Amino acid sequence: MLGNKYVRQDCSIAGALEVIGERWTLLIVRDAMYGVRRFTDFQSHLDIPKAVLSDRLAGLVEDGVLERTPDPTRRGSHQYELTQAGRELWPVLHALLVWGGRHGRPNSRIFMHASCQTELAADGSCPTCNLTPNLADIATRPRPGRARLRDDPIAVALRRTHRMLEPIETA
Amino acid sequence: MLGNKYVRQDCSIAGALEVIGERWTLLIVRDAMYGVRRFTDFQSHLDIPKAVLSDRLAGLVEDGVLERTPDPTRRGSHQYELTQAGRELWPVLHALLVWGGRHGRPNSRIFMHASCQTELAADGSCPTCNLTPNLADIATRPRPGRARLRDDPIAVALRRTHRMLEPIETA
Repeated sequence: MLGNKYVRQDCSIAGALEVIGERWTLLIVRDAMYGVRRFTDFQSHLDIPKAVLSDRLAGLVEDGVLERTPDPTRRGSHQYELTQAGRELWPVLHALLVWGGRHGRPNSRIFMHASCQTELAADGSCPTCNLTPNLADIATRPRPGRARLRDDPIAVALRRTHRMLEPIETA
Repeated sequence: MLGNKYVRQDCSIAGALEVIGERWTLLIVRDAMYGVRRFTDFQSHLDIPKAVLSDRLAGLVEDGVLERTPDPTRRGSHQYELTQAGRELWPVLHALLVWGGRHGRPNSRIFMHASCQTELAADGSCPTCNLTPNLADIATRPRPGRARLRDDPIAVALRRTHRMLEPIETA
């Protein structure tokens, strides 16, 4: 077991990786950016063991990336929402997305400035409006022509154009 | 053991994380960006077990992030250099650096546009020149007033202003 600390690395990169560097963590953050809020929805969209998901969610709450609150629609359940610090991880996710897309894993989704529908440039800016939108001003839709690998409720909801951070309602 | 693949996640982020998401991997890439090329130098700067370093370097070579070539100064030894794909990971590293610096782990180093010495903005651009420099056009120096945690040869070399990617010569 390697642990998740980088001892004696006085480096902001190492510090960030202590928070979001564990396996699955950034994909949970990605899903929270899509608007996933419930444990069962994270689980069905990620095919992730319950114990691992519990551990990662607890860590993200502890590190101030997610906030855990009672689910207003389900008595006794909780939901997880990105904090401001969590939303500020978007440039990290977008940089990974761009790099993955250029190097062997073409993007399956388009990310666009919600108000003008222009696809974001590699640096995260909107070429039409000449600004870099915040996560809440970004929308996503599937890239046409890609096969669908999944049919869990989150994957189905994300087949339509969806604004980032807007809660995804599932049954 | 969780493995390093994300099966049935048709997502460029997941794809990128399959390449650089394992523990230590991004810190190895960071050091390669600083100009570290030799196995022993990665090891002494990262305090990383040999077997883990070997595994990560082999994975990065296999995935086209590093190139392994004979070390011209040491018969029988090899060195590791970033490929173009590897150098293009800079925006990922810089986004992590900015996020870590804002959230609990202040940056210990300054990254600046080498030609004008202006510190890079959060989006990686140079505010003076109004462009986003490539990694080869960036220099780094320690942020003044920070305690020094390390005195391995790489840490010592990085106490001076250093241009990214320029090989760090150690004894």
